[in-house]
Amino acid sequence: MAKNSLSNLWRLTNFSESATFSAMNNTQETVEFAERTSVEQVEEGKDLAPKFDANGVIPCVTMHHETREVLMFAFMNEEALKLTISTGLAHYWSRSRKKLWKKGESSGMFQKIERMLIDDDQDCVVIEVSLTEPTAGGTEASCHVGYRSCFYRQVPVGEGDSKRELQFIENEKAFDPKAVYGDAPNPTQL
Amino acid sequence: MAKNSLSNLWRLTNFSESATFSAMNNTQETVEFAERTSVEQVEEGKDLAPKFDANGVIPCVTMHHETREVLMFAFMNEEALKLTISTGLAHYWSRSRKKLWKKGESSGMFQKIERMLIDDDQDCVVIEVSLTEPTAGGTEASCHVGYRSCFYRQVPVGEGDSKRELQFIENEKAFDPKAVYGDAPNPTQL
Repeated sequence: MAKNSLSNLWRLTNFSESATFSAMNNTQETVEFAERTSVEQVEEGKDLAPKFDANGVIPCVTMHHETREVLMFAFMNEEALKLTISTGLAHYWSRSRKKLWKKGESSGMFQKIERMLIDDDQDCVVIEVSLTEPTAGGTEASCHVGYRSCFYRQVPVGEGDSKRELQFIENEKAFDPKAVYGDAPNPTQL
Repeated sequence: MAKNSLSNLWRLTNFSESATFSAMNNTQETVEFAERTSVEQVEEGKDLAPKFDANGVIPCVTMHHETREVLMFAFMNEEALKLTISTGLAHYWSRSRKKLWKKGESSGMFQKIERMLIDDDQDCVVIEVSLTEPTAGGTEASCHVGYRSCFYRQVPVGEGDSKRELQFIENEKAFDPKAVYGDAPNPTQL
């Protein structure tokens, strides 16, 4: 079965029962943001008035809604944020590929929004998500390197050597990145 | 008692017993970062080789180590990251004030690092922290608006009106921001 058919199958089977999810009826055009008019409105009010930075993006922290692990950190442009809100599936702006990035599109590892939060000055969002397994095999995960979370290494803090040796907190990969991504270019840049 | 004396008192009483904490002996000069030489080194290795963006900063997600709430999102420059690692207390780069920002310096709400993680391409860090109470009264918190977390409002996701009304997930403020910050300028910008 082709990758796109699998994605569609997944979407139909996993979300058809959800009362709050309807990818068919909701598009980004249905979500409107308020104009930012005062500090009080932005900090203390109920208007959704997100602030995009000079590059037109807003940072997003993605965490697992059950384990409370931080899974990844990425950016959304206006379209991605509106699509995330309207469809209930995480969309980002890929800075390396300079395009809209529906998480899971190529890997099968979709992120379903269980809760979205926005911060005091509305220039950052947190999404708490549930995950799906990669279509090419493995367990639920989020990181392109093959680990569950992008944050799979710990930095020793406090007294210590001038060079801090990172410690792995995930013992093994959740999936084989070659099987999932094939020869797609690695997004990591030096 | 003056604010600075209180801070010093807090520092001496709370951390003098900690084996991993010694503000006197550790300065940022004692921490060295590795040069970034390959994707493999950065993603799969044990070298700490953080990447600072075009503005010289790295994003930092701050969460509470016990409740697993995301408390805030901010940036660190090289000096702030090194000081955070060496002292075990969160330091940031204040973009609004354009200066090093030791969290808690003016409010008493310090953040002690319980664990620091870094992501796959080493361009984002997560710090898991414990908090202290504001010196002017109130319960432990992090947000300048007076809430515990900066993420005190939820965005409704899925089907719904085009304008989404934010829902408060914290019922009351943890401290009085006027008592803590006085007439200091509000960092929120429209």
